[in-house]
Amino acid sequence: MNDTVDPAYPVTKRNKVVRRYQRGFYDKKTVHEILDAAMVAHIAYVMDGQPFCTPTGFWREGEHLYWHGSSASRMIRFQSPGVPVCVTVTHLDAIVLARSGFHHSVNYRSVMAYGTARLVEGEAEKLRAMDGFVDRFFPGRSALLRPPSAQEIKATSFVVMEIEQASAKIRDTHVGDEEEDYALPIWAARYPVRQVVGEMEECPRQHPDATMPEGMRGYRTGRTLDDVLLEAARQYED
Amino acid sequence: MNDTVDPAYPVTKRNKVVRRYQRGFYDKKTVHEILDAAMVAHIAYVMDGQPFCTPTGFWREGEHLYWHGSSASRMIRFQSPGVPVCVTVTHLDAIVLARSGFHHSVNYRSVMAYGTARLVEGEAEKLRAMDGFVDRFFPGRSALLRPPSAQEIKATSFVVMEIEQASAKIRDTHVGDEEEDYALPIWAARYPVRQVVGEMEECPRQHPDATMPEGMRGYRTGRTLDDVLLEAARQYED
Repeated sequence: MNDTVDPAYPVTKRNKVVRRYQRGFYDKKTVHEILDAAMVAHIAYVMDGQPFCTPTGFWREGEHLYWHGSSASRMIRFQSPGVPVCVTVTHLDAIVLARSGFHHSVNYRSVMAYGTARLVEGEAEKLRAMDGFVDRFFPGRSALLRPPSAQEIKATSFVVMEIEQASAKIRDTHVGDEEEDYALPIWAARYPVRQVVGEMEECPRQHPDATMPEGMRGYRTGRTLDDVLLEAARQYED
Repeated sequence: MNDTVDPAYPVTKRNKVVRRYQRGFYDKKTVHEILDAAMVAHIAYVMDGQPFCTPTGFWREGEHLYWHGSSASRMIRFQSPGVPVCVTVTHLDAIVLARSGFHHSVNYRSVMAYGTARLVEGEAEKLRAMDGFVDRFFPGRSALLRPPSAQEIKATSFVVMEIEQASAKIRDTHVGDEEEDYALPIWAARYPVRQVVGEMEECPRQHPDATMPEGMRGYRTGRTLDDVLLEAARQYED
């Protein structure tokens, strides 16, 4: 990654965290870690003045975010020539119950990333993206798969966006009440929330010679998906 | 709710599920259940041609979605006069590993809801929304809290959007490979993903007389947040 020059994203009105500015971060390390702990992003774009917010699988390579879709999808066709987008990732980490309604809150980590979405052009680049999409989440998996057919390559499109600007926002504290409210006999608490991997379910039509590949060892039952995905992202980077 | 007349949202180009249309649903029951199982939505809106995608706490009352924010927040100030928005909720339910890259997928439930966001005006309406925001997630809790101060009421704003149109999209199947690929000795599987409630952490400054209210009994360790929130939504409706 070429981010040794500037370890933070430029801040303008577009990405400045105005409210609760203490929760805002612009350094690439923080932004990338929040992105890399996720598999799904929400992408905002505008068609004829109407905003759309589409959830989609995505991944990061250096300063680029990739997502994919059918070549026939409206979002992909619209984004192909290069349109402004905002890509948002959110992790809900806890529910915080305070002594007043006002101080009820949630703990979260979120990133809003801004840039221009463009179609990935050229068959070689597209094939690289197809493998990247698999290998980034499931280390080494693309080499084990049945290769894509000409029809599949044609039917799949990828969009790439360079991160021009981004901001992260994090709340990771406990109940934060008005000082005088702590004296009230009102029950206050925090409930952690975690996205976890459940028990693996083999394909009912599994081939008798098929065995779980090494690269899937990270996907252990009960582990948070955050941890699994971060670990896989580090393997993909190396 | 007045949805006995028309149990489905009107379908136009805006909300039609084009790709994988078999996964698309427009009936209110399906749409509402996906919304009610969530606490956080992503809201797309446009300022000066730039799309933004902001994650925020939200809830549903009949055909209206509510979210809140600081009266000083850029999103709230911008949405106050009435602007087009798209509110999206996504639940990631499973990761599906197929025998080809093309058929890798995820199971999910998502809703994209369209409408015009407007500020909730009037102190009575605002107070009702403040209580609603607490009671919808934590049954009966608003009555137990220190009431909001004049300053807090002033500092908080709510936005409401009537659902003009919506579509749900669901994938809930297992591995779906090309028929001939099942004969290949490539390992294929599905990993469920669940968002679960962790062990409750009392406020470190808990008052000795404070006890967990009845309304919090749904928040049991290990339960999916989906289930907890759906149950709370049904109590709020009644």
